[in-house]
Amino acid sequence: MTTAEKLAKLNEMLEEISFYGRVGSKLGFDQETTCPRMGMEQGSKDLNKISEQIFKIKHSKKFMDLVIDLNSHLDELDPIHKRLIEVLYKQYNDNKNVTNKMNNNANEASSTAYIKWIEAKEKSDYEMFKPYLKKVIDITKKIYLTREEQKETLYDTIIADYEPGWSVKRYDEFFDTLKTSLIPLINKIQKSKKKIRRDFLSFSVPIYKQEEFSKYLLLREGHTFDRLAMLTTEHPFTSKMGADDVRVTTHYYENNFLSNAYSIMHEGGHALFDLNEPKEFVDNYVDGNMTMAMHECMSRLFENMITRSKAFTHLMYPKFKELFSEEFPDVTEEQLYEAANIAEPSLNRCDADELTYSLHIVIRYELEKEFINGKTNVNGLNKKWNKLYKQYLGVKVPNDKEGILQDVHWTGSYGYFPTYALGSAYAAQIYHKMNQEFDVEEAIANDNIIKVVEWLKDHAWNIASLYEPDVWIKKVTGEEFNPKYYIEYLTKKYSELYELD
Amino acid sequence: MTTAEKLAKLNEMLEEISFYGRVGSKLGFDQETTCPRMGMEQGSKDLNKISEQIFKIKHSKKFMDLVIDLNSHLDELDPIHKRLIEVLYKQYNDNKNVTNKMNNNANEASSTAYIKWIEAKEKSDYEMFKPYLKKVIDITKKIYLTREEQKETLYDTIIADYEPGWSVKRYDEFFDTLKTSLIPLINKIQKSKKKIRRDFLSFSVPIYKQEEFSKYLLLREGHTFDRLAMLTTEHPFTSKMGADDVRVTTHYYENNFLSNAYSIMHEGGHALFDLNEPKEFVDNYVDGNMTMAMHECMSRLFENMITRSKAFTHLMYPKFKELFSEEFPDVTEEQLYEAANIAEPSLNRCDADELTYSLHIVIRYELEKEFINGKTNVNGLNKKWNKLYKQYLGVKVPNDKEGILQDVHWTGSYGYFPTYALGSAYAAQIYHKMNQEFDVEEAIANDNIIKVVEWLKDHAWNIASLYEPDVWIKKVTGEEFNPKYYIEYLTKKYSELYELD
Repeated sequence: MTTAEKLAKLNEMLEEISFYGRVGSKLGFDQETTCPRMGMEQGSKDLNKISEQIFKIKHSKKFMDLVIDLNSHLDELDPIHKRLIEVLYKQYNDNKNVTNKMNNNANEASSTAYIKWIEAKEKSDYEMFKPYLKKVIDITKKIYLTREEQKETLYDTIIADYEPGWSVKRYDEFFDTLKTSLIPLINKIQKSKKKIRRDFLSFSVPIYKQEEFSKYLLLREGHTFDRLAMLTTEHPFTSKMGADDVRVTTHYYENNFLSNAYSIMHEGGHALFDLNEPKEFVDNYVDGNMTMAMHECMSRLFENMITRSKAFTHLMYPKFKELFSEEFPDVTEEQLYEAANIAEPSLNRCDADELTYSLHIVIRYELEKEFINGKTNVNGLNKKWNKLYKQYLGVKVPNDKEGILQDVHWTGSYGYFPTYALGSAYAAQIYHKMNQEFDVEEAIANDNIIKVVEWLKDHAWNIASLYEPDVWIKKVTGEEFNPKYYIEYLTKKYSELYELD
Repeated sequence: MTTAEKLAKLNEMLEEISFYGRVGSKLGFDQETTCPRMGMEQGSKDLNKISEQIFKIKHSKKFMDLVIDLNSHLDELDPIHKRLIEVLYKQYNDNKNVTNKMNNNANEASSTAYIKWIEAKEKSDYEMFKPYLKKVIDITKKIYLTREEQKETLYDTIIADYEPGWSVKRYDEFFDTLKTSLIPLINKIQKSKKKIRRDFLSFSVPIYKQEEFSKYLLLREGHTFDRLAMLTTEHPFTSKMGADDVRVTTHYYENNFLSNAYSIMHEGGHALFDLNEPKEFVDNYVDGNMTMAMHECMSRLFENMITRSKAFTHLMYPKFKELFSEEFPDVTEEQLYEAANIAEPSLNRCDADELTYSLHIVIRYELEKEFINGKTNVNGLNKKWNKLYKQYLGVKVPNDKEGILQDVHWTGSYGYFPTYALGSAYAAQIYHKMNQEFDVEEAIANDNIIKVVEWLKDHAWNIASLYEPDVWIKKVTGEEFNPKYYIEYLTKKYSELYELD
């Protein structure tokens, strides 16, 4: 067989995998958006069966032989196929000792944990969730331990899986840098005399109005609804079903309208990335190969740098006045901007301001590091959570619902959280670069976010799936990754807002 | 192999079919409720692939041999398995000459027609839809013509497929009986001096309020939301994903709040049936084997006899006052009841009153009969539609959107429409029987519709999937099918409402 023939054979199987991938994504999406409670168990079983089909193809001798064979002829491949084979070979190598049974157990443990998490969160009862969490952690460890190549610790292995090039040591340094620079800034802010109006943040806003506002915001962010759907879930997320079909979800709180507004801008950022990879990536099954931090980079870029800006507040203010004249008759544009950027230690990661956000991540990172590397177990994890919130953020967690049960992630993945903070730092570096090329705030204020989208399409999204993060960030910005841009960005924004010296 | 072993083998394949069935239903549901426009093409392709999987299993030698074998030992089977094998053998026999290609062509033609129908309806342009309609009709005919056993005409074959025991001749008689009795009644009503207040029917009602009202109505109808989901689509429908997972959809019109209210009660009736078949039917794959008219019987029973009653109006009136005090400050309970039952020839089948409803069906029946039996083709079908509306209902159709493009059905099925009218007649006969056993209106007024549900569970739903309609109606009511109950019911209700002598 020629290389082209091998690739053609492989493509057939990749098309099959991608068919089951789309079906699985739709079933999963249905499960979280629509499925009535009593249908979820059957839904999970069916979802696991789909995942099993993908597993079977990827673990078939025919598929593995092709991948191994093509991997030994990488030099004969064009850059896109070279990347494809590298990714598939890594997947093969990482998972070759994972049995079908382990895979099924992992899926089952995770989907059961998801259902139990919703119940436990409703009842604010960590103990209810604990045994299911333990099961997912155990099976996750078991699966990672089948790898022949192990890093210094198991958590290092997991971390590098999400973000190649990163380790516990590097993350420790990164978080130390953030803490050293940001904690003094947070302290200064807490002493600042600046008064930010906040009463209206908890005013009641009917859900249907929030929904209309969200749709408006997505349009302003550069979306059209012929390629995007918006629904409601317990925890907001973005799901890509195909090159022209991405869905974002949000969660409405009647007494916290900004939560939905910025959460939808966050998911909207993910969706813009998903909808704008080069067509040849999609056609050749290499789209979606960016890391989590690279993806979070875009969601946080749009959520924070772009839409929490003065320019965007100016852009959305007329609609805000029109929709909410009854709820907020006297809120000025400046008050809205300031309220959307209040820096204040709080309980909830999703609603955290840009400044204290990283501390929420540090807490999760430190707990994960401990329970994955076996220094602690799931008993009393909620108490440890609460202790760290007190220590780092100075807030008292009143219950598990607002504490350890707030995030969905631990029903299935560990090592993901640190990528949120890293993504924000990537975003700041890219935002800095973009601003050297054109006036971003001006583009936003002129309802021309499409200029930002186009720049990212041409400079970042066009190569993201081809490179590992360190290479990518250098290609996009011309420099090695440097957290100083993130710190500078936050220092400037918050010094201005809080009128610090 | 023993019979038990054969059944076990068959069950494995039926479980596989039912897995793909659920997946297909969810993908189809996603397509109609959520999928953004540009994702629909890929969605259709994936849906067709699922349908192909089912086709392959059902047409596999292993499956067919088992069905043929078990069919020759029907006397060894318990009633449930006997019914299962009879149904599967009929399916086998009816479809054995249908090739995979024909099946794919049919699916493709139908899903394309669906997409084009939405576009054509938006643009109110029958010509746009016409070629796709023609394609679906052609492939449908082609498929039915592969059957070895052909009835008198092709439309007879199709009709008997939907409703065993029924033919063009029998339907012609049935519709003649209806016309003979109902047209004089309609004429009397048109001359009646009774004034029914109708101004408020077109008052603007915000969608979010209609949504809340719909949810309330579904609860009153006997639903709980742990087994039912409610979404929005172009054309309302009900879809069963499993024994504990049924979804209903509705369509909101800002200036026609009753349209949504009764359409959701109609779908709610379907859903009650779907959610209340015996568990052993579900476990043995014989659930869902009632005919279309038997299913429509239940949707129309709940939509009309149950929820368009004075008792139900009384039950929902407090919520109506609470939700719509702003929109309808002075609408009385009696005015609401009367307005929900205005008998008046109109353009739209879904919104038609109980009395003129059958005439909408006659029009579709007559057109189907003609174009399936080849006496006419799709050219000018919209003009024929408009002519019949003028002739039977005396209304002028202003455009295709409100005319021939109003219904989704012809994007994939013919012979379905007549079952709506027949279902209403079944419903009246069952409603009559039920009233002999307890006071139905009293149960409704006491918010005790569950009594109706329980009665139907014990007398109708517990055997529906086991019998053909003529046998079923006799078992439920103790009598042969008789349209007189339908005519008597309508005559009584409308004579009272319009104060006729």
